[in-house]
Amino acid sequence: MARCISTRITERFGLKVPVVSAPMAGAAPGRLAAAVCKAGGLGLIGAGWRRLYHLGLGEASRAPGPGSGQEAKSSDAFFWRPCDPAPFAPAIHAAGAQLICQCQTIAHVRQAVESRADVIVAQGSEAGGHGAARGTMSFVAEVADLLGAESPNTLLLAAGGIADGRGLAAALMLGADGVLMGSRFWASEEAGVNPALQDAAIAASGDATVRTSVPDVARGKDWPKPFNIRVLDNSVIRDWLDKVEAARADPVLCQQLAERYRTAAAIGDPDNTGVVVGEACGLIHDRPSVQAEL
Amino acid sequence: MARCISTRITERFGLKVPVVSAPMAGAAPGRLAAAVCKAGGLGLIGAGWRRLYHLGLGEASRAPGPGSGQEAKSSDAFFWRPCDPAPFAPAIHAAGAQLICQCQTIAHVRQAVESRADVIVAQGSEAGGHGAARGTMSFVAEVADLLGAESPNTLLLAAGGIADGRGLAAALMLGADGVLMGSRFWASEEAGVNPALQDAAIAASGDATVRTSVPDVARGKDWPKPFNIRVLDNSVIRDWLDKVEAARADPVLCQQLAERYRTAAAIGDPDNTGVVVGEACGLIHDRPSVQAEL
Repeated sequence: MARCISTRITERFGLKVPVVSAPMAGAAPGRLAAAVCKAGGLGLIGAGWRRLYHLGLGEASRAPGPGSGQEAKSSDAFFWRPCDPAPFAPAIHAAGAQLICQCQTIAHVRQAVESRADVIVAQGSEAGGHGAARGTMSFVAEVADLLGAESPNTLLLAAGGIADGRGLAAALMLGADGVLMGSRFWASEEAGVNPALQDAAIAASGDATVRTSVPDVARGKDWPKPFNIRVLDNSVIRDWLDKVEAARADPVLCQQLAERYRTAAAIGDPDNTGVVVGEACGLIHDRPSVQAEL
Repeated sequence: MARCISTRITERFGLKVPVVSAPMAGAAPGRLAAAVCKAGGLGLIGAGWRRLYHLGLGEASRAPGPGSGQEAKSSDAFFWRPCDPAPFAPAIHAAGAQLICQCQTIAHVRQAVESRADVIVAQGSEAGGHGAARGTMSFVAEVADLLGAESPNTLLLAAGGIADGRGLAAALMLGADGVLMGSRFWASEEAGVNPALQDAAIAASGDATVRTSVPDVARGKDWPKPFNIRVLDNSVIRDWLDKVEAARADPVLCQQLAERYRTAAAIGDPDNTGVVVGEACGLIHDRPSVQAEL
């Protein structure tokens, strides 16, 4: 049964708990977002590889959290880095939707504030999937200071390395209004992830992940610096770690990598495709339904 | 005036606050350790480049914290990674001293537990100076789980990205018994650091640091993998980042780097030597005396 914790994010979105599920492309389908919303959190849908990366719909809980006193909007549009949000922000604001920007550097945060983001996700390097170099611990506090001084009505979510109540409590101590979690929901029954990949991550320590561009090159995705992607450090990553720039430049090499990567993804071979999970996998030991976890 | 927070670390060492200053080689002289101890924390001396890295003496506060009810030992020996502590642990235990091991991976933690470490410092990548890849947020929680299951009497300190009460509160939420802080004390009046270098760090965002081996190559220090050193991302680091392996192999190149680096260190030029500070520099805006800060 969901417990209730009231913060500014639960009040604004009508939630029972200040927990948001990450819009993980492919891994965060509507059924996951719906389960998170029903459990009292805010579920985001990973819309995938469009110009508006991870634009999704969040259906907030029908039962507003205590102290909120307001019904949440039934659909809000969400937005992700690494695009500059400026060209899209006016339309999002005009629709009455909430603009949520995930940021990995202080420069990104300033861009998001200039676009009048309603919520900023301060994402540390520990996070699974795409991200950059700053660690969650000091980055969240530094962003909290910036928002407190320059944009106090902008809400702040912490992301990266957070998978349970301890991480939520720590994030609140650092000045966040709540957390956005990926890996914990990635390893759930409702996620769109092959169970064999989930099992590999559940068995791993957080030491067993690495930030690399191998999955992006394998999939033909050209993410700009400073972004790369955190995955389990498995055979395909180890084999290609030092050859990734060569593969990016050489179509024959790239094709070799891509075929191995895609074949393994199709059959659920966790040693030869990207297992897109964060350092928090060391805190995750089961694959529950989201209802049970929240 | 120091406030009091009681945890297992304050009880065991007779402290007023669960705060330990890092044994930063050169930057943590006796006067800094003494000031930290007088203020109610535990001060460690950075002993420098010996086989027993950072062996130091900690004189605990003479006024035990509330609830401790015991006088701390007046001198305890401390120990640092990356050595395997096993060869040294028996002598340290036989002397009745406390064995403190700073760890950057779960494998390091297991080694330290096998050597019956009294205190483990779980150091995240955010930290200034030597360290490795894990982020503080999930690493501390994962180590807390490991110790809880396998060595519940071993105390746990969190390090990396922590510079104020928010970070201490977050660390306690994650299951730590206290924190070890470097950058905050590095930027203090009592530190053995050129004020020009301190000023450069105080002015910087946490985004402006980087992990690299350039300072180690410049100083002829051969640290093993996975260790490197976090410093401000200044001119000398940027100029040599892509040439560091070449400099390691080529004495003429190495000499060029070393001369620039050492000359700048001698005159306090923060753009051409290593400014050894962590991502928490984005949370640090002054250079107080330790007495005033704690």
